Amino acid sequence: MQTRLVSIGEGRSLIYVAGQISREGDRVLTGRCPDQVPVEEAARRARLCALSVLSQIEAAVGMDRIVAITQLIGLVLSAEGFGEQPKVMNGASDLLVDVLGEAGKHTRAALGTNALPFSATVEIAAVAVVRTG
Amino acid sequence: MQTRLVSIGEGRSLIYVAGQISREGDRVLTGRCPDQVPVEEAARRARLCALSVLSQIEAAVGMDRIVAITQLIGLVLSAEGFGEQPKVMNGASDLLVDVLGEAGKHTRAALGTNALPFSATVEIAAVAVVRTG
Amino acid sequence: MQTRLVSIGEGRSLIYVAGQISREGDRVLTGRCPDQVPVEEAARRARLCALSVLSQIEAAVGMDRIVAITQLIGLVLSAEGFGEQPKVMNGASDLLVDVLGEAGKHTRAALGTNALPFSATVEIAAVAVVRTG
Repeated sequence: MQTRLVSIGEGRSLIYVAGQISREGDRVLTGRCPDQVPVEEAARRARLCALSVLSQIEAAVGMDRIVAITQLIGLVLSAEGFGEQPKVMNGASDLLVDVLGEAGKHTRAALGTNALPFSATVEIAAVAVVRTG
Repeated sequence: MQTRLVSIGEGRSLIYVAGQISREGDRVLTGRCPDQVPVEEAARRARLCALSVLSQIEAAVGMDRIVAITQLIGLVLSAEGFGEQPKVMNGASDLLVDVLGEAGKHTRAALGTNALPFSATVEIAAVAVVRTG
Repeated sequence: MQTRLVSIGEGRSLIYVAGQISREGDRVLTGRCPDQVPVEEAARRARLCALSVLSQIEAAVGMDRIVAITQLIGLVLSAEGFGEQPKVMNGASDLLVDVLGEAGKHTRAALGTNALPFSATVEIAAVAVVRTG
């Protein structure tokens, strides 16, 4: 499933969003940062992952019901020694705040790894609070 | 702790399950996918991790109390360039749906990494909703 | 944001804490385990991450309001083949239990990776339950 809702009272639910990999249309955006994909392009891909997170919430309950983005776990396909995952993930974080304002602010774990599904450059999973009552 | 319960009202709790590594009995199932462990065998190991997740929930509150598996975070010990973590993780996902039906469907982040505890092939952490009232 | 609160009823909230990387004052403690940073020193750095988690909760609501540490996700910057992430993460886990007693016990996913922000040795994200009523 792309999303799971868990009611937490007062007409609100946690919504868990499955890991969204960097895509443009049907095409997975692949390659490792920074030797195959420069930081700026990786940040753009993180932004696309954040848009996918929003699309999944839109499909499930509607984006206008978002109370707060609670947690992002973001993975960047990384060459060894690369440490600018926060700069990459800012592409996602800035998008969420641009679109949602205060509700888009979130806690974040920015991580690197040597391997992601289909060699995608970025994968982002999320938890948010939405109004469902 | 293997599990932590958090009451969320209406007689339900979130149950957090610690990362379960691939084991058979007391033996850790080790090695990297796909050069040391083929995808099909890694998927079997992911299935064993999912069984461990269920065992932990069984020990804590009883498996019959599961309302929904909410989130799986699955890590596959991966050679660089390997991107079939979703295929590996399907071993876990399919097991949960086979055993629990609709309640077993979940959101998932399938990730790769170069290093896991004891060089286990797979590690899976989970969050679920259970009836505790 | 460093923390996000989500009310779950009965005067309690989940608090999500952003990934805390290993630091001493302003300096990031960098390097890979075990070839650049021995296990014992990495465990000390994990302990520092756990202290940062507590500091963030202190700043948000006060540490005395912690009901339970629910989940730690801990990443250790790891050389290939390194599998003692649990020993490293025990630095964090032991600290939490020393400071908080029963409330400090938690579920944990101990993971390795080839790349972390600023090449930090350890990064830990957390979820806890706090009294907010």
